[in-house]
Amino acid sequence: MQERSVISPSLLCQRNYNLQFATVEFPAATHRAADIGKELIDKQVVLHGYFGAVRKTGKFLYFSSFYDYYSNPPHPLKVVSLIDSLSPQITKAAHQILGSLHRFTPVALRASVYKCAPSKSPEKRKFDEEVELRVKEVIPLNSVSESLIYTEGTIFPPENRYLQLRTNKELYAALRLRSRTASECRSFFEKNDFLEVETPLLFKSTPEGAREFFVPTRKGDGTCYALPQSPQQYKQILMASGVPRYYQLAKCFRDEDLRTDRQPEFTQLDMEMSFATSNDVMDMVERLIISIWNNVLGVRIDPGFKRVPYWWTMKNYGTDKPDFRYANHRIKSLHEALPHLAKAGRSVEGFAFYGNTSNYNPDQAAELLDEFKKENPSVKDDNYVAYIVGSGNETQAYIEGGMELWHEANLANIHVALWVHRPGAIVIIKERRGHYSGGNTKLGLLRTALLNKAIEKRLLQGRSDYALVWVVDFPLFSPTSADEPSQPGAAPFSSTHHPFTAPIAEDIQLLGSSPHRVRAEHYDLVINGIELGGGSRRIHEAALQKYILEKVLKMPQDKLQQFDHLLEALDSGCPPHAGIALGFDRLIAVMMGRNSIRDVIAFPKNAKGGDVMVGSPSVIPDEELRAYGLRRS
Amino acid sequence: MQERSVISPSLLCQRNYNLQFATVEFPAATHRAADIGKELIDKQVVLHGYFGAVRKTGKFLYFSSFYDYYSNPPHPLKVVSLIDSLSPQITKAAHQILGSLHRFTPVALRASVYKCAPSKSPEKRKFDEEVELRVKEVIPLNSVSESLIYTEGTIFPPENRYLQLRTNKELYAALRLRSRTASECRSFFEKNDFLEVETPLLFKSTPEGAREFFVPTRKGDGTCYALPQSPQQYKQILMASGVPRYYQLAKCFRDEDLRTDRQPEFTQLDMEMSFATSNDVMDMVERLIISIWNNVLGVRIDPGFKRVPYWWTMKNYGTDKPDFRYANHRIKSLHEALPHLAKAGRSVEGFAFYGNTSNYNPDQAAELLDEFKKENPSVKDDNYVAYIVGSGNETQAYIEGGMELWHEANLANIHVALWVHRPGAIVIIKERRGHYSGGNTKLGLLRTALLNKAIEKRLLQGRSDYALVWVVDFPLFSPTSADEPSQPGAAPFSSTHHPFTAPIAEDIQLLGSSPHRVRAEHYDLVINGIELGGGSRRIHEAALQKYILEKVLKMPQDKLQQFDHLLEALDSGCPPHAGIALGFDRLIAVMMGRNSIRDVIAFPKNAKGGDVMVGSPSVIPDEELRAYGLRRS
Repeated sequence: MQERSVISPSLLCQRNYNLQFATVEFPAATHRAADIGKELIDKQVVLHGYFGAVRKTGKFLYFSSFYDYYSNPPHPLKVVSLIDSLSPQITKAAHQILGSLHRFTPVALRASVYKCAPSKSPEKRKFDEEVELRVKEVIPLNSVSESLIYTEGTIFPPENRYLQLRTNKELYAALRLRSRTASECRSFFEKNDFLEVETPLLFKSTPEGAREFFVPTRKGDGTCYALPQSPQQYKQILMASGVPRYYQLAKCFRDEDLRTDRQPEFTQLDMEMSFATSNDVMDMVERLIISIWNNVLGVRIDPGFKRVPYWWTMKNYGTDKPDFRYANHRIKSLHEALPHLAKAGRSVEGFAFYGNTSNYNPDQAAELLDEFKKENPSVKDDNYVAYIVGSGNETQAYIEGGMELWHEANLANIHVALWVHRPGAIVIIKERRGHYSGGNTKLGLLRTALLNKAIEKRLLQGRSDYALVWVVDFPLFSPTSADEPSQPGAAPFSSTHHPFTAPIAEDIQLLGSSPHRVRAEHYDLVINGIELGGGSRRIHEAALQKYILEKVLKMPQDKLQQFDHLLEALDSGCPPHAGIALGFDRLIAVMMGRNSIRDVIAFPKNAKGGDVMVGSPSVIPDEELRAYGLRRS
Repeated sequence: MQERSVISPSLLCQRNYNLQFATVEFPAATHRAADIGKELIDKQVVLHGYFGAVRKTGKFLYFSSFYDYYSNPPHPLKVVSLIDSLSPQITKAAHQILGSLHRFTPVALRASVYKCAPSKSPEKRKFDEEVELRVKEVIPLNSVSESLIYTEGTIFPPENRYLQLRTNKELYAALRLRSRTASECRSFFEKNDFLEVETPLLFKSTPEGAREFFVPTRKGDGTCYALPQSPQQYKQILMASGVPRYYQLAKCFRDEDLRTDRQPEFTQLDMEMSFATSNDVMDMVERLIISIWNNVLGVRIDPGFKRVPYWWTMKNYGTDKPDFRYANHRIKSLHEALPHLAKAGRSVEGFAFYGNTSNYNPDQAAELLDEFKKENPSVKDDNYVAYIVGSGNETQAYIEGGMELWHEANLANIHVALWVHRPGAIVIIKERRGHYSGGNTKLGLLRTALLNKAIEKRLLQGRSDYALVWVVDFPLFSPTSADEPSQPGAAPFSSTHHPFTAPIAEDIQLLGSSPHRVRAEHYDLVINGIELGGGSRRIHEAALQKYILEKVLKMPQDKLQQFDHLLEALDSGCPPHAGIALGFDRLIAVMMGRNSIRDVIAFPKNAKGGDVMVGSPSVIPDEELRAYGLRRS
């Protein structure tokens, strides 16, 4: 940051004194920019706002525009400043101020509303403004740094987020849509008898899943609050408190290594319903989404979102976030095409892609495949086969993919299995190891990458409609991964979502013997291949909850004790309940058609978790840490 | 907490298996309790909810009530269970379940709606229910701990907050009023073109005033976020971002030694307006309050709240939170009654109290004064004079108050000055040292204590109306107090509210020479002697802001740098702006007529900052602290 020159106090005080009288007293606005129309012709108005660039047509006549931010995008008014022979002194002063005004200066403008003279040519006339403002008085309300230079197209750095917000119409539109959508959600929930309850943000650490931020206290013995990953436990306790239906736009926190487009703090549209089943929640959320899309976006969405089991979408799309708009090119098993491998218990899968735009021809396909392979290099154990049918490179592709043994006998069979009917199709094949778990198979990731690339290169028609789908029947437990923090248990698996998720009733008997086969009453809402959020029916019986924590997850006693409050609440007659949390940032991003949630957050953190504008986080001096009984180790 | 017995897994699994089938599958509700009326006579309904106590009239006939929480207070329906000769098996089973049901068991109830037989006596008939429910099937949906015992009047401890919420109708009413008021506030702000913007909770430490909570990061070099005391800086940056009007129900945090009725986390109704003056904000808030009182409480409040300067209310009420409902008994100066002390530059003040209920007589007054003196003992330098006029104890009181020299010559004069016209009045007198600063004079505290005591003892008529007043013209700076954290500056004073408050224009010239005389464009909204919140016009010019931080508060360079982002934002053409923050918890407490904000927060912290229900905060193991590069010092 540029060091400011230190102004000597007496000088500044003098300067401020004058400056303040110029800027502290200013006339109240009589109108907003959007109010100015032909009803006001010949009236004098006072507006608050900003001038656009000033165009000087000689010494006596300037043109400019004037706008405020009550409408977005701002609708600039036509402004004319000319030295007026009737009141030359007033307008001369205003004219001079306008001529020397720094861009972005906030002003109070006193002006008269005039009817515009019509353009001479009839074609131009239809673009004529009805009225223009003639400047009478310009009162600048602040100075602007000389170093701030702006022309149309200037892109400001994140350090100047306020200038981004001021100049990027899309960003400001996102904030407005966000505010509007929050309002729509709240009114939906209110209409449906949900009670908005604020739950604490200074919570305690519980071994639920994601890594938590700690908030040290001054007790000095390592006593800390933890910031909540979600209001999960409090909202379940609300169900035990008699609250029939709860909702909240809740702030949540995760101290994760930031993956693409995650934020350490985020907003969650959180709800829970007592005496409810999974179906009740899914039905309610469908109605919510339909009403948001209808009332905010003006888009009609049909009720009855598709519901598919986890295994089905993993098998067909290689992901638990299927995009049903691109339902062709699905993944197929090569089980029958490769019987010798099937017999050996190995699973090989593939899919074939054929573009659907007029751009798609063998040359374009080859270019697409080349770029795709460059961006998705085969490495060691992560090889895959990729070729264009009929290109003559098939054998080479199988060798590169480490699968030279397979294709020779079975190329025709494979193409039958993948429904390849003509040359020019791109075929991708990969072996899959182990059961379905996690969010994507490797082949699923390749498929998504190829489709995105094809859309980018206009070989596949990108679609702007909305495909909503519920993914259900997730496994209740997943193998513990070394990468991600999970619940501390001696079991070699942990809860796929969180340990409060109810098992599907008919699978409860498998909890003791085959926990990996138990399905969860969990549901994810997926829109256009993006997970909007997930929810579940919760375990509402203390005995079952304790059994899962203690006997299935094998949590040690000290960790188990951290859930005592929840077990007690369940044990006090907690009714059955189910709920969901939707990512609110993600919801707005989807509605705005943006890929990154950073584009819909007023002051987002960057990929390192920092806000470069304010300089957070920052180093706390040792003596301040000491007040918390802490020091750097 | 009671240790639960560990259930052997196989047994439990067996039990759960059966239990789950009983509790997982349950019929959907056809109605809510409030829907049951005579239109449904002879219909069968399914309800979800809870039974009240069961009254057994012999073996074959039980009476009970049934309620849910959709209405508050719950309206219990009359329930009759008798063994029905038409379908004996169904109703016998239901009858037996009802007879052995634990209180609080959540159930699905299948019942028929019957017209009640009218009472025999006509007087009783008007209390008759129109309909009653005859039990057909009772499906318990959870077990309830045997140790949970409840009779009407049981008060549960804070550890069982969920039981408090379930059984304390006032508490649940507060949550409903809170939700309703939040909705009313939001719709008011939306109608007035305010944009709701969420500002970050992971902020950075800035030397603004109150002590902040830190949130360590895993960078391990002492890098921390800080939880915000308020969104003050971000909302000012929003003004520099072009947002015309902003609001938010914001979560705020203060790591203070908890005074009575403070919470480490609280909710603030936060707003800011660009191109606005203090008057614009005060007008907007008056309209907000009027609309809340009207639409939520159904109480009419007149516009045009009184505005009084800080010095005036300190002089007349001895507090900056005057309760205009008790405008008698005001504090008066004894300047003229005690000219020799006035000449010596000493200030003596007093007030006289006379009860206004028929209870008030000399005996009662003496009892009141005795109790008052017991609770407010005179100690050393904090002496005061207190007596009943005409009691004959005046001399003694002056001696005890350390003021024996004064009264002898001046008792009559003093009584004239205090407008004492008749015996029986209680007089309290105290010397005041120094200029007015802080929230109360010592005499002001004594006055408030006496009035509260008199209301408690019904010697003064307590009032249930609402008196709203703006306190304005606060001093911009106050002497730094050793008790409270403040901005780090070399100056012997710090900002009364925060360093972004604008000085009143005509006082700017005093900043260099007499900073203690500079008044702030700050306004506090006070209702019935309770501060609902405060706001101010902000400094919108970088030069003035820097001058105040650097030259007036004399902040060291390293602290000053922590405000660089704000100075830059102001310097980019930030418009004039003003705003306010109202304590939302306090607002709800006032509306509910509660003294403590704990009564209007779903899960409050106790006086030690703990939530005893979940056991927060808790000790974080050393190895987890180590991940944050920290250890206990």
